[in-house]
Amino acid sequence: MAASGGMPSDIPDVINVGLMGLGVVGTGVATHLLDRGSSLADVAGRSVNLKKVLVRDPALPRDIKLPSGVMTTNAEDILSDPDIHIVVEVMGGTDPAEGYLRQGLAAGKHVVTANKEVMAKSGSELLALARQNDASLLFEASVGGGIPIVGCLMNELAANDIRSIRSIINGTTNYILTRMAHQRTSFQQALGEAQELGYAEADPTNDVEGIDAAYKLTILASLAYRRPFQHADVFCEGISKLEPQDFRYAQELGYSIKFLAIANLEDGAVQLRVYPAFVPAEHMLAKVDGVYNAVEVDGSLCGQVLFHGMGAGREPTTSAVVGDLIEVIRSIGSHATQPGAQDGRSPGNGVDLAVRPIGDLQARYYIRLDVVDHPGVLAQIAQVLGDGQISIAAVLQRDTHPETESAEIVITTHPANEASMQNALKAMAGLDQVRRVSNMIRIEE
Amino acid sequence: MAASGGMPSDIPDVINVGLMGLGVVGTGVATHLLDRGSSLADVAGRSVNLKKVLVRDPALPRDIKLPSGVMTTNAEDILSDPDIHIVVEVMGGTDPAEGYLRQGLAAGKHVVTANKEVMAKSGSELLALARQNDASLLFEASVGGGIPIVGCLMNELAANDIRSIRSIINGTTNYILTRMAHQRTSFQQALGEAQELGYAEADPTNDVEGIDAAYKLTILASLAYRRPFQHADVFCEGISKLEPQDFRYAQELGYSIKFLAIANLEDGAVQLRVYPAFVPAEHMLAKVDGVYNAVEVDGSLCGQVLFHGMGAGREPTTSAVVGDLIEVIRSIGSHATQPGAQDGRSPGNGVDLAVRPIGDLQARYYIRLDVVDHPGVLAQIAQVLGDGQISIAAVLQRDTHPETESAEIVITTHPANEASMQNALKAMAGLDQVRRVSNMIRIEE
Repeated sequence: MAASGGMPSDIPDVINVGLMGLGVVGTGVATHLLDRGSSLADVAGRSVNLKKVLVRDPALPRDIKLPSGVMTTNAEDILSDPDIHIVVEVMGGTDPAEGYLRQGLAAGKHVVTANKEVMAKSGSELLALARQNDASLLFEASVGGGIPIVGCLMNELAANDIRSIRSIINGTTNYILTRMAHQRTSFQQALGEAQELGYAEADPTNDVEGIDAAYKLTILASLAYRRPFQHADVFCEGISKLEPQDFRYAQELGYSIKFLAIANLEDGAVQLRVYPAFVPAEHMLAKVDGVYNAVEVDGSLCGQVLFHGMGAGREPTTSAVVGDLIEVIRSIGSHATQPGAQDGRSPGNGVDLAVRPIGDLQARYYIRLDVVDHPGVLAQIAQVLGDGQISIAAVLQRDTHPETESAEIVITTHPANEASMQNALKAMAGLDQVRRVSNMIRIEE
Repeated sequence: MAASGGMPSDIPDVINVGLMGLGVVGTGVATHLLDRGSSLADVAGRSVNLKKVLVRDPALPRDIKLPSGVMTTNAEDILSDPDIHIVVEVMGGTDPAEGYLRQGLAAGKHVVTANKEVMAKSGSELLALARQNDASLLFEASVGGGIPIVGCLMNELAANDIRSIRSIINGTTNYILTRMAHQRTSFQQALGEAQELGYAEADPTNDVEGIDAAYKLTILASLAYRRPFQHADVFCEGISKLEPQDFRYAQELGYSIKFLAIANLEDGAVQLRVYPAFVPAEHMLAKVDGVYNAVEVDGSLCGQVLFHGMGAGREPTTSAVVGDLIEVIRSIGSHATQPGAQDGRSPGNGVDLAVRPIGDLQARYYIRLDVVDHPGVLAQIAQVLGDGQISIAAVLQRDTHPETESAEIVITTHPANEASMQNALKAMAGLDQVRRVSNMIRIEE
């Protein structure tokens, strides 16, 4: 067997690992490698040596004591060391992480990364680079923390054509929505609590606007549909418009509100969308509370399989990173396709699916309107919906305030076209007797 | 690279598969290989040819038309054909299936099997045989149908020490319990319905007495704890003692009754048990209805990860079998540890866990008693429990019938020792005023 890439031609007895990043996840991974090395060797079949750990500031106080000489501030100590077989990148962000990954793969090193942003933006290029260099590139930790969804889409569920993925893959926003549903707090108050508990960052934009979920959905959809998708292919609406009364109406109508990331295939086109949605209260996804994540895969053979677990945190993410590490170590010396290289994202894989624009969505809708409490207002609204071929399933009228002559009207529709609904919302907003279109939320059955 | 086992020394472009069995699952697998061959080749990286299919009766009418010359009644046409690389066994039962598996592995053929009985009874011998012959032995379909739990325990979750597995892995009994809970039917009536729908067999013993679940639990525990367990290591109680009032009391107390298969590790010993249990109504496992299966893995790093999906049926099982087939095909030509051989069930793997007897269980208990409705009966029962160091959490007294002087008493306990509880149950049955110990059900929080 010929040596491939930067690997020594004999299969090494001890696998040297270079860890890039020693934050929350890096500390978890390093702790596991140092404390559980013998158990890891049993499972992986070879011993693992944590040779170098890249940090920005070696003086920082840390929860871990590395053996002397292991810590470095120079990435070249990892990337240019021919004895390091596997690079584990847990720094996050694109710069300098992506450059490091490219350099490691180009040197024929196997790579395990937790980096959702890099995998969403440059996953297919990096996977191609891995293939060119007979290297593995694994990224279980980039989506869903301790939930093994990436590996299952690559491997265990590989026989299936994926009809859809519906997921709750951002723990911060699921915590916020759970608080809003159970305590009926405002979005701002729930966000503040999440920030106090360390679940949300000071600038929560990435989470609450769905950017993080869209990265993860991009990764899942690229695996499921075996073609690269881009972040820009994802239609994205955040959760900041949600108000306590939306949760009250949802409950009354038999739904929960969940921040879903959805990919589905229909008529040869894939639609990717992230938005808060009504989910039937008895559905498993409606029962995913707090910082938990869940992913429901609907496959042509397996049917609906749901995965539920901790989507973030030091230990769950370490589970994913070390699981990838074990897979790479077991495959070292292999002649076979490298793990991660077989995800089908190779050019010319034969699948050339279009991206379906959001305007083509067929969904049921919930609309909440602040109206002038006059007779005839409902007739006007119904007329607008009828003009758009949108038929009404239910109407609730509540919170009538005689002193301001205002009332709140809630409408749910039968399945309708998104573009028609958007036009109807504009037309409703233009009606004299409609003070505000307070919210529109899609219903996912 | 040297040829290993019966594999040709060059990696073949086309992988020949011999399928043993053409029942429900075999038909699903054959249909997939014939109809979706090109898609399968894309995903697996090599073309797959269904070379031979073993059947008992070639004259039987079938849902599938095989190409001419593929069907055979002679197992040697598969097992002795050096051009067949992979044997897929979906016959079920131990004889002749196990002999065929041994012969295939001994010839260096890779094996994919759906056979829970063989894997539970002889899994570690077969895995050893596979290792000796550089062959893969994969068995995802043996547990949980379309739920990828076997692969996840072997691979994605391999970094974890498994604290416990709690599962609903028999669809027939989950259907029966769901009917009993929602329609308050008797066990016999629910069983009859399941038989009419084809969910239960004419002789339902294997399902309702937990034998099937115990096979599957044996397989899961052997993977999770990396040592072989035997069917006899599983404490097993079936569901036939359950009565409609148990479901009524469960609901009143905030629980569902589910037929659980549980493995857990405590103080260096593993306990394996299958029985109907009270599960808190808000727990995800309580929400697994009908013929669905679910497996909750509690790992040292990942925390609780729950898998939920179709546990049986042609398509879900085909998903598992073909997923294994893809894994084997991707690994063909590999020098690395063969898939399935790394499950740690090799002798001397270092883990030597004892089996904890059921008498050592600490659990909360639900007891239902038919008593003589006299003052003082509760005091006598409480005395018996107190003598056993069992403290009472709640008492309900219902269904008093003055005409027969009988009453029903339901007691839940705080955590207590199983052996003490068994003694107390005997003592209670001996009390003059206790007509019957109607049921005892363990509570799993």
